Amino acid sequence: MAISNIRYGEGVTKEIGMDLQNLGARRVCLMTDKNLSQLPPVNAVLNSLAKYGVNFQMYDNVRVEPTDQSFLDAIKFAKKGEFDAYVAVGGGSVIDTCKAANLYASSPASDFLDYVNAPIGKGKPVTVPLKPLIAVPTTAGTGSETTGVAIFDFKELKVKTGIASRAIKPTLGIIDPLHTLSMPERIVANSGFDVLCHALESYTALPYNMRSPCPSNPINRPAYQGSNPISDVWALHALRIVAKYLKRAIRNPEDREARANMHLASAFAGIGFGNAGVHLCHGMSYPISGLVKTYKPKDYNVDHSLVPHGLSVVLTSPAVFAFTAQIHPERHLEAAEILGADIRTARIKDAGFILADTLRKFLFDLNVDDGLAAIGYSKADIPALVKGTLPQERVTKLSPRPQTEDDLSALFEASMKLY
Amino acid sequence: MAISNIRYGEGVTKEIGMDLQNLGARRVCLMTDKNLSQLPPVNAVLNSLAKYGVNFQMYDNVRVEPTDQSFLDAIKFAKKGEFDAYVAVGGGSVIDTCKAANLYASSPASDFLDYVNAPIGKGKPVTVPLKPLIAVPTTAGTGSETTGVAIFDFKELKVKTGIASRAIKPTLGIIDPLHTLSMPERIVANSGFDVLCHALESYTALPYNMRSPCPSNPINRPAYQGSNPISDVWALHALRIVAKYLKRAIRNPEDREARANMHLASAFAGIGFGNAGVHLCHGMSYPISGLVKTYKPKDYNVDHSLVPHGLSVVLTSPAVFAFTAQIHPERHLEAAEILGADIRTARIKDAGFILADTLRKFLFDLNVDDGLAAIGYSKADIPALVKGTLPQERVTKLSPRPQTEDDLSALFEASMKLY
Ligand SMILES: NC(=O)c1ccc[n+]([C@@H]2O[C@H](COP(=O)([O-])OP(=O)(O)OC[C@H]3O[C@@H](n4cnc5c(N)ncnc54)[C@H](O)[C@@H]3O)[C@@H](O)[C@H]2O)c1
Ligand SMILES: NC(=O)c1ccc[n+]([C@@H]2O[C@H](COP(=O)([O-])OP(=O)(O)OC[C@H]3O[C@@H](n4cnc5c(N)ncnc54)[C@H](O)[C@@H]3O)[C@@H](O)[C@H]2O)c1
Ligand SMILES: [Fe+2]
Ligand SMILES: [Fe+2]
Repeated sequence: MAISNIRYGEGVTKEIGMDLQNLGARRVCLMTDKNLSQLPPVNAVLNSLAKYGVNFQMYDNVRVEPTDQSFLDAIKFAKKGEFDAYVAVGGGSVIDTCKAANLYASSPASDFLDYVNAPIGKGKPVTVPLKPLIAVPTTAGTGSETTGVAIFDFKELKVKTGIASRAIKPTLGIIDPLHTLSMPERIVANSGFDVLCHALESYTALPYNMRSPCPSNPINRPAYQGSNPISDVWALHALRIVAKYLKRAIRNPEDREARANMHLASAFAGIGFGNAGVHLCHGMSYPISGLVKTYKPKDYNVDHSLVPHGLSVVLTSPAVFAFTAQIHPERHLEAAEILGADIRTARIKDAGFILADTLRKFLFDLNVDDGLAAIGYSKADIPALVKGTLPQERVTKLSPRPQTEDDLSALFEASMKLY
Repeated sequence: MAISNIRYGEGVTKEIGMDLQNLGARRVCLMTDKNLSQLPPVNAVLNSLAKYGVNFQMYDNVRVEPTDQSFLDAIKFAKKGEFDAYVAVGGGSVIDTCKAANLYASSPASDFLDYVNAPIGKGKPVTVPLKPLIAVPTTAGTGSETTGVAIFDFKELKVKTGIASRAIKPTLGIIDPLHTLSMPERIVANSGFDVLCHALESYTALPYNMRSPCPSNPINRPAYQGSNPISDVWALHALRIVAKYLKRAIRNPEDREARANMHLASAFAGIGFGNAGVHLCHGMSYPISGLVKTYKPKDYNVDHSLVPHGLSVVLTSPAVFAFTAQIHPERHLEAAEILGADIRTARIKDAGFILADTLRKFLFDLNVDDGLAAIGYSKADIPALVKGTLPQERVTKLSPRPQTEDDLSALFEASMKLY
């Protein structure tokens, strides 16, 4: 189990110029998205770079919910710039794009599919050395500053997939909670749901000692190893913070305590799932995002339709945990209790229903769209959603309960309407 | 905040030969102590090295509670062997010795004092590259497999000190709880007390944002950064495990669940204190160990007198936390509650007394020697004990409450008798 370097504190972003000097960086690539390029987090970084005289070029063309095309555009920029260090300022979209740019610029002879997860890509192990990458997360969601994962939407196949390798994990994550203050309500909510699902899925994932095949050589083990006593600590801790602070962080942009705690929870849950893995909510979310029709979420300052990642994972969560609870009912009940359920008279065999109910109430309270139907899907889409889930076996096989295609259909169907 | 790689599981030691092959190691240095060289943990490593045909030399001359002389002896062996990887199988004594051997063999022109903590040594930053070191802890105590610290007894000065640098942190820690099964009772107890104090001290250490001076350049920040929201997670989690399992682990060598949990708690607390730091119990323990007279603890299969590290830290803990509670009484009360105190009617201003009392009961239940007097010290030794604490400012300055020499005298005096 490997864990990234993290620096935490209000205002610590101002040191980033010094960090880059310490790294001996002479040509820095600063990545962000168009919206963020006008906002305080990018400003804070620019000020520090100026103060320490760091030479840099800025790429602000990151696509929110990146695609193969948008990754390739960033990679082209990175190859041309011959950078010796990278800084990503943004949410998962920016950090993931920057990881990919660093990887392919450091491995210029590689084909794009080489490092993409099998069976969609070739899933080759990364053996080239990468440049240092400092990630400055501005959402409280993906925990991408702590993981070796970069996710994108493979347009041709209409499915999200990614690159997963310890090699692309950022060198340093700078968690400066001041950056969360500019997030509008729905971005706090959706990125917070991502934290919620990372915690719930990694805590309920197949235990590390039941995963098969278990490659006998440790070097071949996947980054996602199944739930284990160390990732459990992170998952539970993140879940407790979500239970205590997510609603406050969403409702009150001035609630610094709540926003700062969610910012840390995002990293904690990232460390948890980055080692244990996620399972069905994430596996099923990739086609939900990839097949998006015309949905345009509130508060996202972008011109294309998209299903925000956190929303795409949380909408199936009641159905998923009702389904998986059979296997570790105590853990499901414990999660429900942390999220506020009164379980004093609960029967263990109802654990799944109780957790599902708790989640539905949680989402209802936060005005979340009423299921997949509300974001544009109907029963007729289910076969395509199932088909898009099948290649996600890297995560779906970490579900504690194995699933057939019929099971997946039923889970999508049960997620059409929530309330 | 940086955290090591850890692999956890019963029997995972059998993979170590493969790990060394993966590292391309051709000349491995295996370090342990004389006692352990006859016991199952070393056996398991030897079997794996043989199975994978790993070429190695064994050094089993590690001193339990190492000294400058014993470090130098191991360093000599390492320099001569021209090793390309190290394996340490043992408790903190072995792992720390191996860290020092790797460091000085990788930096052959350095003087021994160069890397020793200031003000005793020169405290130079490590800039040379080290060889990979795999640590296989066999006690449930120091967490040395996760830290960049190596402690030794500086005989000339009669005081313990150490080397602290991220560079000497092991590449991988293999936590195989099977290794804890051979530990005799007092070794479980004393190493467990070390975990207890790491957790309590790092949880109550000066907060990271109140430490001064705070070097403006991040590269110059010490490894010990003060308590912070991330180390708090580890410290509290470790403390909960100690509360639940330490007594069981001590009393029943067959209680695998308890011993395995303590083995993990040791690493958790190590990650916590390795980033946050420890304070007075540890600062005062160094002269308690260094000035040892004739004390020979039960169950330690060695021929010199010594005060085991865990015992040397825990004996002052009631006095220390009664003293520090003024500053963060809620944290002290919370710790007392985790350790079993009923705090429903407690007053916050009694937090220190309550935690001290809880600790005394805890130690009494476990037949711990009745204070410093029971291990050979008297009032007449207090000036020397205080004098030996003064150079430990690297840790003592992390105490939430500053101390004068008189305060230190009073703390030693209060620790002469516990019950
Ligand atoms: N790498 C991983 O480990 C990992 C894990 C989960 C999800 N992801 C991926 O990350 C992406 C989602 O990332 P995300 O949820 O962080 O959001 P995002 O990066 O997609 O950003 C969403 C929107 O929020 C805006 N925004 C971000 N920070 C802001 C701030 N502080 N103030 C105002 N606006 C702000 C952005 O400009 C953007 O419009 C998806 O592609 C998802 O698949 C990656
Ligand atoms: N590096 C760090 O972060 C750190 C932290 C705390 C303490 N320390 C240092 O570590 C040393 C103490 O280490 P420790 O408490 O782990 O004990 P230790 O290494 O000194 O070993 C104590 C005794 O236990 C025996 N032993 C160890 N494992 C055994 C097993 N599985 N079965 C039977 N016998 C076993 C040893 O042979 C030895 O006789 C001290 O020098 C202390 O200052 C280092
Ligand atoms: Fe996610
Ligand atoms: Fe210790």
